[in-house]
Amino acid sequence: MAKIGFIGLGQMGSGMCRNLIKGGHQLKVYDCAEAAVQNMVDAGAEAATSARAAAEGAEVVFTMLPIGDIVYQTVFGPDGIAEGISNDAIYVDMSTILPEETRNIGRKLAEQGVAMVDAPVGRTSAHAVAGTSTFMVGGDKEHVQRVMPYLECMGECITHCGPLGTGATVKLVNNYISAVCNLVTAEGMALGLAAGADQDTMVEVISQTPAGLGHIKTTWPAKALADDPSPAFMLDLARKDLGLALTAAADAKVPLATGSVTREIYNIASAAGHGREDWTTGIYRTVKHLANAT
Amino acid sequence: MAKIGFIGLGQMGSGMCRNLIKGGHQLKVYDCAEAAVQNMVDAGAEAATSARAAAEGAEVVFTMLPIGDIVYQTVFGPDGIAEGISNDAIYVDMSTILPEETRNIGRKLAEQGVAMVDAPVGRTSAHAVAGTSTFMVGGDKEHVQRVMPYLECMGECITHCGPLGTGATVKLVNNYISAVCNLVTAEGMALGLAAGADQDTMVEVISQTPAGLGHIKTTWPAKALADDPSPAFMLDLARKDLGLALTAAADAKVPLATGSVTREIYNIASAAGHGREDWTTGIYRTVKHLANAT
Amino acid sequence: MAKIGFIGLGQMGSGMCRNLIKGGHQLKVYDCAEAAVQNMVDAGAEAATSARAAAEGAEVVFTMLPIGDIVYQTVFGPDGIAEGISNDAIYVDMSTILPEETRNIGRKLAEQGVAMVDAPVGRTSAHAVAGTSTFMVGGDKEHVQRVMPYLECMGECITHCGPLGTGATVKLVNNYISAVCNLVTAEGMALGLAAGADQDTMVEVISQTPAGLGHIKTTWPAKALADDPSPAFMLDLARKDLGLALTAAADAKVPLATGSVTREIYNIASAAGHGREDWTTGIYRTVKHLANAT
Amino acid sequence: MAKIGFIGLGQMGSGMCRNLIKGGHQLKVYDCAEAAVQNMVDAGAEAATSARAAAEGAEVVFTMLPIGDIVYQTVFGPDGIAEGISNDAIYVDMSTILPEETRNIGRKLAEQGVAMVDAPVGRTSAHAVAGTSTFMVGGDKEHVQRVMPYLECMGECITHCGPLGTGATVKLVNNYISAVCNLVTAEGMALGLAAGADQDTMVEVISQTPAGLGHIKTTWPAKALADDPSPAFMLDLARKDLGLALTAAADAKVPLATGSVTREIYNIASAAGHGREDWTTGIYRTVKHLANAT
Repeated sequence: MAKIGFIGLGQMGSGMCRNLIKGGHQLKVYDCAEAAVQNMVDAGAEAATSARAAAEGAEVVFTMLPIGDIVYQTVFGPDGIAEGISNDAIYVDMSTILPEETRNIGRKLAEQGVAMVDAPVGRTSAHAVAGTSTFMVGGDKEHVQRVMPYLECMGECITHCGPLGTGATVKLVNNYISAVCNLVTAEGMALGLAAGADQDTMVEVISQTPAGLGHIKTTWPAKALADDPSPAFMLDLARKDLGLALTAAADAKVPLATGSVTREIYNIASAAGHGREDWTTGIYRTVKHLANAT
Repeated sequence: MAKIGFIGLGQMGSGMCRNLIKGGHQLKVYDCAEAAVQNMVDAGAEAATSARAAAEGAEVVFTMLPIGDIVYQTVFGPDGIAEGISNDAIYVDMSTILPEETRNIGRKLAEQGVAMVDAPVGRTSAHAVAGTSTFMVGGDKEHVQRVMPYLECMGECITHCGPLGTGATVKLVNNYISAVCNLVTAEGMALGLAAGADQDTMVEVISQTPAGLGHIKTTWPAKALADDPSPAFMLDLARKDLGLALTAAADAKVPLATGSVTREIYNIASAAGHGREDWTTGIYRTVKHLANAT
Repeated sequence: MAKIGFIGLGQMGSGMCRNLIKGGHQLKVYDCAEAAVQNMVDAGAEAATSARAAAEGAEVVFTMLPIGDIVYQTVFGPDGIAEGISNDAIYVDMSTILPEETRNIGRKLAEQGVAMVDAPVGRTSAHAVAGTSTFMVGGDKEHVQRVMPYLECMGECITHCGPLGTGATVKLVNNYISAVCNLVTAEGMALGLAAGADQDTMVEVISQTPAGLGHIKTTWPAKALADDPSPAFMLDLARKDLGLALTAAADAKVPLATGSVTREIYNIASAAGHGREDWTTGIYRTVKHLANAT
Repeated sequence: MAKIGFIGLGQMGSGMCRNLIKGGHQLKVYDCAEAAVQNMVDAGAEAATSARAAAEGAEVVFTMLPIGDIVYQTVFGPDGIAEGISNDAIYVDMSTILPEETRNIGRKLAEQGVAMVDAPVGRTSAHAVAGTSTFMVGGDKEHVQRVMPYLECMGECITHCGPLGTGATVKLVNNYISAVCNLVTAEGMALGLAAGADQDTMVEVISQTPAGLGHIKTTWPAKALADDPSPAFMLDLARKDLGLALTAAADAKVPLATGSVTREIYNIASAAGHGREDWTTGIYRTVKHLANAT
């Protein structure tokens, strides 16, 4: 039974709030929209008149806000969290913002002795309402453990990703991959439709391959993740197939934006000597090399 | 027990050949590399001195060749299949070539009364050896049924995709999506590594979401495939997250080629009024509209 | 002979400052780097201890700073310009920042009765030193006229682009086009080199066509700018040539990143019915349509 | 006064033909469209009933055809040029096809002792009619000199680019750069329009910078072409400006396809240590390195 401050009562935030109340906690809430505050009061929370007021006396303060600038203002602006929060409390931001913005806020709070955890949210607002959100969490182990019971009221599949900011990083990585895979699925299906294939048939075929099952649990473990270049499928063969798809698409006037530039990266990989390596290992090595990442 | 002609004895072709022999069939084989022919003779096949000779007397003739021009020459060039194949035989091309190349060959063979099926192969050469290839098959139902027993000697998960050329189309669609998803996985992981996240942690998180599980069996069935625009996750939110990832990547100098252009297509979708729709439905609608595909 | 406040004494700023002094004006300067301030004092300026102090008593206050956040803090932060500037002075920002950031600052200054002009700079730091910078200027006509004499001390080719923020917009448009044209030039040359062509020969040929001369003064005036779709060169022919270049580049493993995605936009244009229009008009219409811009 | 065979009488070809006739030459022409042949007969040419017939007795044989496969068939198909052309004649292909297709045809003709020159055409069909086409010519110096008088009947600015196929290469390089520059001009203008700038103002500004004047005669000679990395304008500053343009475009929902992927290549350049080099030299070095081109 903890005293919790909660700022940001949109679709996600209000769902999460209700689950904290359901978990037996005592909520003091603030939002610039008064109606949103009133809804939470009806659900059992106490209204605060500012972020500062919501933070005062709380053991943990949560924010769930749209963009980094607003998070910053909510913490450090006039009547902000930083003015109200006590030194032994923990501040948890669940918004999706840049890792650098997260670390910047954390550094400034640390100067006044306040600890921060970032815990951006996966899944949808329906999951937030159901209390089945996922969390990618960044922060010191001790701080993460202290806020874990509250996150468990709101979700499941809670992963501690590393120091402050890595929650945000892993969230961005995940959503980045998902957003592109979403488009390439649409592009592939549109190409098939334009060329006379049937949607159901394509779904059936794709559902059995990395195109539909993803790579991270199928092709990657034995090759790219193990840095094993021995080819299950050679990069240059994938490059050839990409070329055929792009030619077929140009004939049908179907735009394959992601694949067009993908072929060029495969060209780079092949020019750098990865053409006869496994396509996953060769591409992973290429991108890491281009990025100086290891 | 059928008489089969088989041309193209590379890594894939020779594995397939052995499985047809194992299935009790009588093979007559040809390849421009004599050593490859001799290997198959050692395995129980009869050597042919040309594609024409391999085709003569066969009930079904298979080709497994690297590119469309070579398939065309093997069929219609001097001493080609077209000169040897009988009118009641079926010609099956398992090469990965353009659907239009497939249909062109089929049209010309039809003029001399010969039926054609295209059956490009999924999975790797290890699967070809093991007899567990997948096939995406195009052609008339009757012809596909006649060659099915032979395909079953060589593989599993055999899908009849529609008329001649749709096997090639679905193969390209599938490999297209896979090749891009492979790159975007590498890009996302490289971004995470550059920003201080841990590979294992990223794999763990991604394995539970569409980023790692693919979209076609997770987010797409209830939304994009049903053309339901009501948002589980709004397109404009995915667009925002893409922007954050691109900014974080530019700071870390990690190249996100697929994501960069993906963001622009999301911009197009949003400008066209799909920003508040579900991200899968909105994107699928946008790409189909741009392509005039339905 | 005016009293001028100047904040931001980097490579560009210090060059500009000297030219204002040379023009007979009385400068009060500030920079967070003391050495930079001292250099300007040696050149005849008066040192200020803050942005506020530099602004006090000035008829016009200039900033030349690296990013939007710093501009904002320099204006509205503690000891910022907003605290020192008088109501009949004009604030001129010459930094390259987002138009929206510019307008945001302008709105807040307007609340306290101070006028703003944005005047981002073209060309290089060598031009700034020589007093031959170009300026793209946004703001009310009256305010722009008042600051024109000072801009003329620092540069030439000064264009009033429209209301506040349009200086920044036109600057971004210009630099955007230049940055891409720079890369595509490199890509084309690399493709030629890889395929055995000679650099000098390519330069000679390109220098006579829109590839080297740009489009805006060659192909665009009679067609795209006049919205005339009658083809001097048909969009679908350019699309075909792009396809050939991409195929040749894939064979040579030369990455053509810009061209790959360009081909897809040409595909979109062609699918939308612009394939037989002039390539400039058809592409301009397509992009404007996708962007809802007119 | 030479005997010339000419095959391919489309919009371009018929214009060129007329200029050869005007030049006093004796033309024997063929096209699969009889009306096109008749038009040339009316203009003073002799009709041939096949490509072979057009080639017989000619000192030089020209083709002007749409795609590489058709050129190949016109030369080596039944009743093709190869059957009619004499050993001391020269075959000149002016079509825009792949350099590799050109070299392939040249190799096969050389086997029967016939020389080939490739001379793809620049500019538009209006220029072909006016006799002011440009030619990018590939072939042995001796052969190029022999066909030069005929090319001069049809055009101006005739550049000998190197051995057979380099005409095609330089043509593709040129058209590649032009096609991308055309799109990026449209993208930039659309961004400006969407953000409230005026078309005329943008044209005025752009006309004075590399955005409108091209790079090859402005920024490149002293830097990229001289491999001088000392910065007139630093690559990382251009990279920053690209980021601002992409952010402004995302806010306005304007798709900047070329710029999006350009930013990623600038990221690659910066990660590889070229960030503080001149933007032209740094990018040229990066692309050449990625392509293994020198």
